[in-house]
Amino acid sequence: MGVIATQPGLPHAAEDALTALAGMLRADLDATNRAIVAHMASPVALIPQLAAHLVAAGGKRLRPLLTLACARLCGYPGPDGGARHVGLAACVEFIHTATLLHDDVVDESQLRRGLASANAVFGNQASVLVGDFLFARAFQLMVADGSLRVLAILSEAAATIAEGEVLQLATQNDLATTEDRYLEVIRGKTAALFAAAAQVGAVLAARPDAEEAALARFGLELGIAFQLVDDALDYAADQQALGKTVGDDFREGKITLPVLRAYAAGDAEERAFWERTIAAGEQTDADLARALTLIARHGAIAATLERAASHAAAAAVALAPFADSPLRRALVAVCDYTVHRGR
Amino acid sequence: MGVIATQPGLPHAAEDALTALAGMLRADLDATNRAIVAHMASPVALIPQLAAHLVAAGGKRLRPLLTLACARLCGYPGPDGGARHVGLAACVEFIHTATLLHDDVVDESQLRRGLASANAVFGNQASVLVGDFLFARAFQLMVADGSLRVLAILSEAAATIAEGEVLQLATQNDLATTEDRYLEVIRGKTAALFAAAAQVGAVLAARPDAEEAALARFGLELGIAFQLVDDALDYAADQQALGKTVGDDFREGKITLPVLRAYAAGDAEERAFWERTIAAGEQTDADLARALTLIARHGAIAATLERAASHAAAAAVALAPFADSPLRRALVAVCDYTVHRGR
Repeated sequence: MGVIATQPGLPHAAEDALTALAGMLRADLDATNRAIVAHMASPVALIPQLAAHLVAAGGKRLRPLLTLACARLCGYPGPDGGARHVGLAACVEFIHTATLLHDDVVDESQLRRGLASANAVFGNQASVLVGDFLFARAFQLMVADGSLRVLAILSEAAATIAEGEVLQLATQNDLATTEDRYLEVIRGKTAALFAAAAQVGAVLAARPDAEEAALARFGLELGIAFQLVDDALDYAADQQALGKTVGDDFREGKITLPVLRAYAAGDAEERAFWERTIAAGEQTDADLARALTLIARHGAIAATLERAASHAAAAAVALAPFADSPLRRALVAVCDYTVHRGR
Repeated sequence: MGVIATQPGLPHAAEDALTALAGMLRADLDATNRAIVAHMASPVALIPQLAAHLVAAGGKRLRPLLTLACARLCGYPGPDGGARHVGLAACVEFIHTATLLHDDVVDESQLRRGLASANAVFGNQASVLVGDFLFARAFQLMVADGSLRVLAILSEAAATIAEGEVLQLATQNDLATTEDRYLEVIRGKTAALFAAAAQVGAVLAARPDAEEAALARFGLELGIAFQLVDDALDYAADQQALGKTVGDDFREGKITLPVLRAYAAGDAEERAFWERTIAAGEQTDADLARALTLIARHGAIAATLERAASHAAAAAVALAPFADSPLRRALVAVCDYTVHRGR
């Protein structure tokens, strides 16, 4: 793998982990993609049009992959076959897509996965309403699946996501935000759905509570790691490679760990810089470059990634109750991928 | 009642119908209001703050009243008591409130129920996210209630509402919209929740399918009538009395029955006026007055209200399977109120 990964044009070794997991679950993932397309159908043409814009933009299907992988890890389906994991993986992706659509409206984003965001193409109004549709459709599919336990897990996750997003809004521009508060935000807005997606796998296979809890923990820690890396990349990413605008968080005055660390470590002049650009939101074109310099100077990216690595390690440890298998090893590799992606 | 209603300062006879229904269900309605406040609690302070803004603004609680009234009409709860109707009435109000929050963002409204709208006070971002929270919380409460049938009815209603709203967006500024298409919009955006709110009452009381269907029909027809009147009032209402800005629909280029009728009946010069103001969205300050004149000239308000009256009558007829009772009479009176409110 190391030799292959050094050849230009071939996937990076770390990205291989996700590709490998998807490969192991290819039939399930293809079925999930078909379910996603089938269930976003509506007589109202704009709904599948807008939804297809997001589907066409790709995305890694990381969250539905967690549902599929955890269901399989728990031995679902039994010898009788069964496709509930496929339907619920589609639900998880719908909830995720709905939050993306609403996020982009909230953030006024112009780019998503390297393409123009849905709100930029179709307008904020359509993005809000199609997000609502996908959210409702996800619940319809869960109801059709028929498990109140699954409904409880995913409706709680949906409420927690919204709470995390509102909390993020409340901490915006606020340099007095504590690291604990920041972690509360990312646990809500990102990790809660990772946790629910993974936990649902154990529910489907009717595994004991301890295994359900282990997979929920796995998803939670993985989600925290994932968001920490995302927040680091916003001050480090190659825009073209990642399909993400560098400096989005900075321009929005979003409080993330790189900023909190650089602010805490800065001298009076540096703190004044952050207070002007993040707290007061007064920015000039040259400010992003200076922010990147200050963040690099204080090792804030490295510190954020270190924190991410520790959560990714905790995610891998949470898989301990499960017997060694190629699938378990693939999930552990995804924990590693999460920390090393995008570079 | 007729005498009282003619005295200035006292409630209009038609409004009395809703007050009377609320009075008959006072204990249930008070419990519902308490449930609403209790369940919008969140450690994220902005959520109850914003939600309270809407609760403080009042609102008639028409949709939860339908759930409460229909449950009681069906004999729920039995001699053992029971409070599921209260919890589900709160769910219905949460779904309604979530759609209001998102509507106001979509419409960029400044007023709601006579007060500054939530988006005007708290911003579009918070309105989108708190709407998402209330929607998720509604599903959490339904899951706690535990009826998959109720979940199916309300999740389908939620999807239909979103479809209706998207369809409305797609018909905006389009004078070629047919009356059938317009009716499809209002069935989705308004009547679907009325229908679901009423139907849930029969489900709670475990009534036969025919009664469930009758109450769904009652709610659907009442909701269509309600929206038709709303659309008429937008070209006729006294802003202060109704807590609504007159001409909102006109300014947004919304396609409603008064406009469709006035456009269809207009001469070449009048059609050019509608094409400029509604289709092209080019409006001057004097245009609203001219729109009101044209709509009045062609009897488009009267035609819209006549159509509303026919749907309100159909709603009353749908209650035929239920034995005569003060509650049934109160619901029939609400059908009448719906047509005569606001004037």
